[in-house]
Amino acid sequence: MDSMMMGAMTQSMKSMPDMAAMDMSVLQACMDACAACEQACTVCSTQMMDCSPACMNCADMAGTMMRSMLRMQGMTAASMMAMLDACIAMCQTCMDECMQHADHSDACRMCAQACKDCMDACMAVKDMMMASA
Amino acid sequence: MDSMMMGAMTQSMKSMPDMAAMDMSVLQACMDACAACEQACTVCSTQMMDCSPACMNCADMAGTMMRSMLRMQGMTAASMMAMLDACIAMCQTCMDECMQHADHSDACRMCAQACKDCMDACMAVKDMMMASA
Amino acid sequence: MDSMMMGAMTQSMKSMPDMAAMDMSVLQACMDACAACEQACTVCSTQMMDCSPACMNCADMAGTMMRSMLRMQGMTAASMMAMLDACIAMCQTCMDECMQHADHSDACRMCAQACKDCMDACMAVKDMMMASA
Amino acid sequence: MDSMMMGAMTQSMKSMPDMAAMDMSVLQACMDACAACEQACTVCSTQMMDCSPACMNCADMAGTMMRSMLRMQGMTAASMMAMLDACIAMCQTCMDECMQHADHSDACRMCAQACKDCMDACMAVKDMMMASA
Repeated sequence: MDSMMMGAMTQSMKSMPDMAAMDMSVLQACMDACAACEQACTVCSTQMMDCSPACMNCADMAGTMMRSMLRMQGMTAASMMAMLDACIAMCQTCMDECMQHADHSDACRMCAQACKDCMDACMAVKDMMMASA
Repeated sequence: MDSMMMGAMTQSMKSMPDMAAMDMSVLQACMDACAACEQACTVCSTQMMDCSPACMNCADMAGTMMRSMLRMQGMTAASMMAMLDACIAMCQTCMDECMQHADHSDACRMCAQACKDCMDACMAVKDMMMASA
Repeated sequence: MDSMMMGAMTQSMKSMPDMAAMDMSVLQACMDACAACEQACTVCSTQMMDCSPACMNCADMAGTMMRSMLRMQGMTAASMMAMLDACIAMCQTCMDECMQHADHSDACRMCAQACKDCMDACMAVKDMMMASA
Repeated sequence: MDSMMMGAMTQSMKSMPDMAAMDMSVLQACMDACAACEQACTVCSTQMMDCSPACMNCADMAGTMMRSMLRMQGMTAASMMAMLDACIAMCQTCMDECMQHADHSDACRMCAQACKDCMDACMAVKDMMMASA
């Protein structure tokens, strides 16, 4: 996500009481991790039936999480928190599934790592929101 | 959602320990309410800037919720609960926003009602899951 | 798709020179067929690896097609035609794949039928647009 | 899109007669351009009602295009071509709309540029496919 786009977003968020104090670099890292997770899960969803449904669910949720962070004018602190929790839970489910095939599947190993990174990035946003609340 | 499709889904879910006891008619009602919510929010998102971002977020989340229920093989009870909470929270945010324009906008009145119905249907699924846990 | 929502859409479309002459019932039938196709393909994508990627692609395209018809203010006749062609082509690919397993899979038989219905409905919209151009 | 993921994709595509000869770097550039277009259009869709519906349509199509390229096992040359044409047409519609506000809106200027880049990248994939057909 480039700096020009983050600039456009930052301007919008200054007018939002709930969101004004957010560190944009933490949000940006989370959106990038969601985008990477959506892509890794999408590739992994085409590889084997065992994990495919979990990967599709996780790709879907991570994509929705990323887009919702790009549309912060339509979020409240409460809905943001609930979305982050859902994204973390879905990443956990997908990671648990893909870790079972990580030894013999490059796609699953890559997918599990992307899910882990996405969970960590979502937790960092939650921590930031709770610290500023 | 027609009966042939629900039949295909039911067969899949019988093999899932967490999901085997679910009443399919409650799930079906929830998927139909999510689909209707996604459509109403999408129409409403094109009408006025005040609620548009909330409507887009809600449409996105309701669509993801519906598809995830169609891919139950990739859900756990925990991720399902978190997704339902996120969908309920996002519907609440969108409904609160659209209720402010419900007096003078048909689209907002329709959207707020669809969000309310979707919240209720998600809560019914949560209640069923907690009763069978 | 209920009549209240179609009413809200119709009002929006009257202001669009390219779209003013459209028969809303043809559009409504197409949106319903796209929604049914997205759902059938999503269920089918969880069943076997052979057709799963085609089903995911078709579900994705049918969903995007449906939402774009709900946001006609952001379409031109040219982009609408190209989207319809893409949806028809993707339905064809998925139907061809699922027809190979239709004998022994309920999900594939249902999915192939939903793809066929979606193609027909998209072609009906194209015919209407060409007749009114 | 990182090299490990492209490696997983490349392996899948070697088994596809239609796709075996593709230059992965051209595909990778197109997926990156689609992802950037989806994000820019999503931000722009929250800024003003004039272009918002076109931006939402374009974000939706660019995202579907990107994911479909990550699931090449479910594409044929014909459906790939039609999807690329739809993505190009939708980018054109959105760019034309956003160019009208590019003088006074950073988001529209950024969005129009991302649409242009996405169109060019989709055309490069088409050129490659036609050259290798």
